[in-house]
Amino acid sequence: MIKNDLILRTLRGEETERCPVWLMRQAGRVLPEYRATRSKAKDFLSFVKSPELAAEVTLQPVDILGVDAAIIFSDILVVPEAMGFPYTMVESQGPRFTKTIGCEQDVKDLKISDANELGYVLRAIQLSKKEIGNRVPLIGFCGAPWTILAYLAEGSGSKTFSKAKNLIYSKPALAHEVLSKITKTSIHYLNAQVEAGADIIQIFDSWAGVLTPEMYREFSLRYIEEICDEIQKKVPVIVFAKDAHFALKDIDKIKCSGIGLDWTIDPASARRMLSPGRILQGNADPCLLYANELKIKSDTKKMLDGFGKNHHIANLGHGLYPDLPLEKVKYFISCVKSHTYEPQLTS
Amino acid sequence: MIKNDLILRTLRGEETERCPVWLMRQAGRVLPEYRATRSKAKDFLSFVKSPELAAEVTLQPVDILGVDAAIIFSDILVVPEAMGFPYTMVESQGPRFTKTIGCEQDVKDLKISDANELGYVLRAIQLSKKEIGNRVPLIGFCGAPWTILAYLAEGSGSKTFSKAKNLIYSKPALAHEVLSKITKTSIHYLNAQVEAGADIIQIFDSWAGVLTPEMYREFSLRYIEEICDEIQKKVPVIVFAKDAHFALKDIDKIKCSGIGLDWTIDPASARRMLSPGRILQGNADPCLLYANELKIKSDTKKMLDGFGKNHHIANLGHGLYPDLPLEKVKYFISCVKSHTYEPQLTS
Repeated sequence: MIKNDLILRTLRGEETERCPVWLMRQAGRVLPEYRATRSKAKDFLSFVKSPELAAEVTLQPVDILGVDAAIIFSDILVVPEAMGFPYTMVESQGPRFTKTIGCEQDVKDLKISDANELGYVLRAIQLSKKEIGNRVPLIGFCGAPWTILAYLAEGSGSKTFSKAKNLIYSKPALAHEVLSKITKTSIHYLNAQVEAGADIIQIFDSWAGVLTPEMYREFSLRYIEEICDEIQKKVPVIVFAKDAHFALKDIDKIKCSGIGLDWTIDPASARRMLSPGRILQGNADPCLLYANELKIKSDTKKMLDGFGKNHHIANLGHGLYPDLPLEKVKYFISCVKSHTYEPQLTS
Repeated sequence: MIKNDLILRTLRGEETERCPVWLMRQAGRVLPEYRATRSKAKDFLSFVKSPELAAEVTLQPVDILGVDAAIIFSDILVVPEAMGFPYTMVESQGPRFTKTIGCEQDVKDLKISDANELGYVLRAIQLSKKEIGNRVPLIGFCGAPWTILAYLAEGSGSKTFSKAKNLIYSKPALAHEVLSKITKTSIHYLNAQVEAGADIIQIFDSWAGVLTPEMYREFSLRYIEEICDEIQKKVPVIVFAKDAHFALKDIDKIKCSGIGLDWTIDPASARRMLSPGRILQGNADPCLLYANELKIKSDTKKMLDGFGKNHHIANLGHGLYPDLPLEKVKYFISCVKSHTYEPQLTS
């Protein structure tokens, strides 16, 4: 039994004594302890591939920030790597793939993985579970197939992802083959994460926002849905499609326990747009944590009252930036924990 | 009298025989003729600052693509340059400012310009008008104050614009001072553009999408409104705030003739969300032009029928990318010109 099961109860739609909170990229450079552990590995990928170090940083925010969940420290791009497409992480530039996907032969080279290649993540999950004990739940995750394809076609990050979009516009059948392989691998991978101890799964569609509503339905959402159909039977799944304002009503129909929101969605509009009682997660602007305490407090209050009591997991609308002041991060968390909801007006 | 005044009539809300079309970044690298003219200048800024070369490329798409308007070839960042903050354009990387705005002294260094420093743009407009003759209208433009501030604070492009957002969250008064100076300069500049011959003005808020709805109202929209209040008295103004789905209902209330939309907004949803008869511009995904003709034709048809006959100017939802196939660009334009609207169902 997990002692602090606020997030699990919220994801089951139960009423809770206060709003739970965790932060995307809470195991990250914002913590001095993370930077210390990070310096023990020679590069980012050796860091990710060391179960001991990964488990160490996974635990840090639970101890230091007092968040209501841990999220396994890893990277969404370990999936394409396991499928035969290696990459390196270039300091302050982001990922670089050594080969990209553009033609039929590349798609043949992409192999469906049964997650055997990802044993180091599974061991990190086992170690983390052991260390956390029964304190808080552990979140596992993967990237949405479209986001993984976007990196595979582009070879790196991009402002427009025009190479990836070129692929889906000019070679849709090939793109579907890639997406289908990534989906199969992701299902194997997430099942293995649950087996290893993950209590919740989050799917990150980081590049949802570069697609049109129609292309999103065809090239992203149906694959996310396929994953949810499998995983949601076992543990609650949260779908976070960044900048996918246009797809929220479609995501609402998917079998998942929670929907993540970025900060461009006003909480009240989200509530109006989505099914009553939908569990929503988010959505403070990370840059709010550059502001003074007065502003942080008042914006956090607006967010919490906007989503309303229950059916909400407080978070940012994106990952923490490395240069956000740590004391402000802690202050945001304390604002959530100490919040008193405005009494609901009866209509 | 302008012979092809389709866009002007559309912006006045009049019915027209067909939907007008122009393309953002139509005077750009997608045209071999542009690349030939560009090679005559030693760098991007000398190119922008040569009225003869700028006028030459402004005219090219009118002749080659048969678009229904020309847009003056220039850059939104000439405004901060005129205000004392010089920049260079680094090949395939984007703009780099030599000094940025972060503290009070920087704001003091930022001077309101009466557009005297921008004489080269005004001469380019005069030359272009002369060359176009009475064929099509000429569009002038500027960046929205928030977008200009974003570059000034960041010093370059950015994925998150977290430095610029740090400024508005941590030093809001200072940010308002900067925005106010940019607004005043922009009004001088746009008035001078109209004086020089611009028939229409477009305001580009390229980085609207990184803000929350509330921060957008406070740090961007009110300044756009100030500009519109001045300029819309003289010529029709089109406001294009990219990725500002959350602000469309607010933009709808502004005194401007047209609203530009990016491709994440479904035309039918835009029509439902905005005032009846609002003139909308956009919004094909530029990457659609990587697809085959069948897909281009069918998506263009959906877009045109979605916005409906009249009150719509066809365009992309963003600028043309340099590697889009020219024949597809031409095909898109021909699809718009030859479109027959689906008969409206009576309700």
